[in-house]
Amino acid sequence: MSNITIKELALELNLSAATVSRALSDSYEISAATKQRVWDLAKKLNYEPNPSASTLRSHKSKTLAVIIPEIANNFFSQAINGIEEVSRQHGYHVLIYQTHDNSETEAAFIKSLLSGRVDGVLISVSSETNNKDHINSLDKNIPVVFFDRTLEDIAAVKITTNDYESAYIATEHLIERGCKKIGFLFALNNLSTGKSRLSGYTDALASNNITYDKNQVITCDKNESQNHSRIKKLLAKNKPDGIISSIEELVLPCYAICEELNISIPDDLKIISFSNLKTAPFLNPSLTTITQPAFEIGITAATLLLKLLNKKQVDTDEIVVLKSTLIKRASTGC
Amino acid sequence: MSNITIKELALELNLSAATVSRALSDSYEISAATKQRVWDLAKKLNYEPNPSASTLRSHKSKTLAVIIPEIANNFFSQAINGIEEVSRQHGYHVLIYQTHDNSETEAAFIKSLLSGRVDGVLISVSSETNNKDHINSLDKNIPVVFFDRTLEDIAAVKITTNDYESAYIATEHLIERGCKKIGFLFALNNLSTGKSRLSGYTDALASNNITYDKNQVITCDKNESQNHSRIKKLLAKNKPDGIISSIEELVLPCYAICEELNISIPDDLKIISFSNLKTAPFLNPSLTTITQPAFEIGITAATLLLKLLNKKQVDTDEIVVLKSTLIKRASTGC
Repeated sequence: MSNITIKELALELNLSAATVSRALSDSYEISAATKQRVWDLAKKLNYEPNPSASTLRSHKSKTLAVIIPEIANNFFSQAINGIEEVSRQHGYHVLIYQTHDNSETEAAFIKSLLSGRVDGVLISVSSETNNKDHINSLDKNIPVVFFDRTLEDIAAVKITTNDYESAYIATEHLIERGCKKIGFLFALNNLSTGKSRLSGYTDALASNNITYDKNQVITCDKNESQNHSRIKKLLAKNKPDGIISSIEELVLPCYAICEELNISIPDDLKIISFSNLKTAPFLNPSLTTITQPAFEIGITAATLLLKLLNKKQVDTDEIVVLKSTLIKRASTGC
Repeated sequence: MSNITIKELALELNLSAATVSRALSDSYEISAATKQRVWDLAKKLNYEPNPSASTLRSHKSKTLAVIIPEIANNFFSQAINGIEEVSRQHGYHVLIYQTHDNSETEAAFIKSLLSGRVDGVLISVSSETNNKDHINSLDKNIPVVFFDRTLEDIAAVKITTNDYESAYIATEHLIERGCKKIGFLFALNNLSTGKSRLSGYTDALASNNITYDKNQVITCDKNESQNHSRIKKLLAKNKPDGIISSIEELVLPCYAICEELNISIPDDLKIISFSNLKTAPFLNPSLTTITQPAFEIGITAATLLLKLLNKKQVDTDEIVVLKSTLIKRASTGC
């Protein structure tokens, strides 16, 4: 807490607290000379208004919240950099909350935000989100923009990438490289993000006359050791010759398991992952990725949120779809 | 903002707003039956107290701020996980702010925090921090714990690692692996963290009768392209046979430059880095690291901050030093 109060300023200046308060808020009721005296002393003594009090008055915190599953994920850290870029230009602070994909944590954050701590929210929802009540209450009460990990049946401003098309292209890339038995590491299965990626994969198989084999698809969640054993079982028993990892977090376990099982990448198994990993070009072998335009997603999401805050005309169920890029590297024999 | 106000609850229950307010705060002045009626309706209508108002009353936000240079750094994301672990157990929210090593951004965050938004602060200071006024004002006004990147001449609770000893061990490891011309990528040069790492390196050279060559030390900051050209010049002209990277961010540029200049790791150049990179074992070649106990640092820092908040006995200039680990991998020929 700042030590200097309005009362103390008033005492020092021989003015009433009400006069000091009005001077600080640049009221027309106070003379220019008095305002200057107040401002000079406030500056000298490093006076800081109490934000709780001033929030009550202005109903503005000049703060945005970003709610994401994990900060230890290059996609999200880059998206946040984009969000901060726009926010800084408009004088907003950015608070970051991570849910660790836990929908209870997510609900608790949202409950605390609903009561006026921030002016707007950017959210990439928890993949554990089954109960959507807290997301709905957020959307009804405060300006919100969804990015990347979104829900299907909620009408809101959403920024996503072309998940279906990207998975389709990834699958065709593996087929072109000679793969015939392509495994799919399915994650985010509660979210449209995850479902679109799975559809892109199955449709690309069908278009290329490859029969869909449900045993080549394994569902992963945030249980790391369970994911590890499921991937290991897939690679050991079903012996796919290609793998699509639908999230970044599953690709390092793949590399570790290949080492363990003496599977050579890309000779025995070609791997491609949705990923913004900075180390992708330096892995052994370098990793072919579907890279999302994370920074641009952040820029776009924050720009739309600020428009909502400033009551500018925004289609409140606008969906912006940005394009990901296939970057071919050694893990698919390129 | 929640739509339900105390006034509306009062109207619905045919009580005065003051009675509802007292009932909500469990006042002894209100009968148990009335309190129950108020609580039942508040729950039914999803009433949320305004946090600005309740902050003003209680002077507690039940929120901690973590100020760090970058979230896209595995050390910091793991440390935050530790901080969140402890905070969650004690019912605190954690807000994350990133400064991007910009001391103006850091000062602006601190100014906004000083006015009562949070109960306590955990900070790893910006390496650009020359002017320490804002850090001093933080320390005087709100409970604060410094972790990892700290300032020398401020008496406060600090959690660090054995930076001097770690750099000493790293240097001796390179000498044992046959290196005679060891380069040092010097970062955080304004902070005790960076200075200790440099001293560990120079002292280890001296103990092993290797003359210190100032041309083998290059100073890096947050200017990525400048760092890249400095490292390239070092590798091309001074041809070190070993490199110690004092921060994680400089090691991928090293790998890229070695590829560019056809320098083989570890044959021509052995590399070791201070790093918590998850991908370190999967790089080509796998990277020898000095790995800091990031999660434990977070746990320890948050535990000490909560003690400060609860006015428990804490030595207010306590310095806790945790130990880093040398993990030997292929980049140093192991």
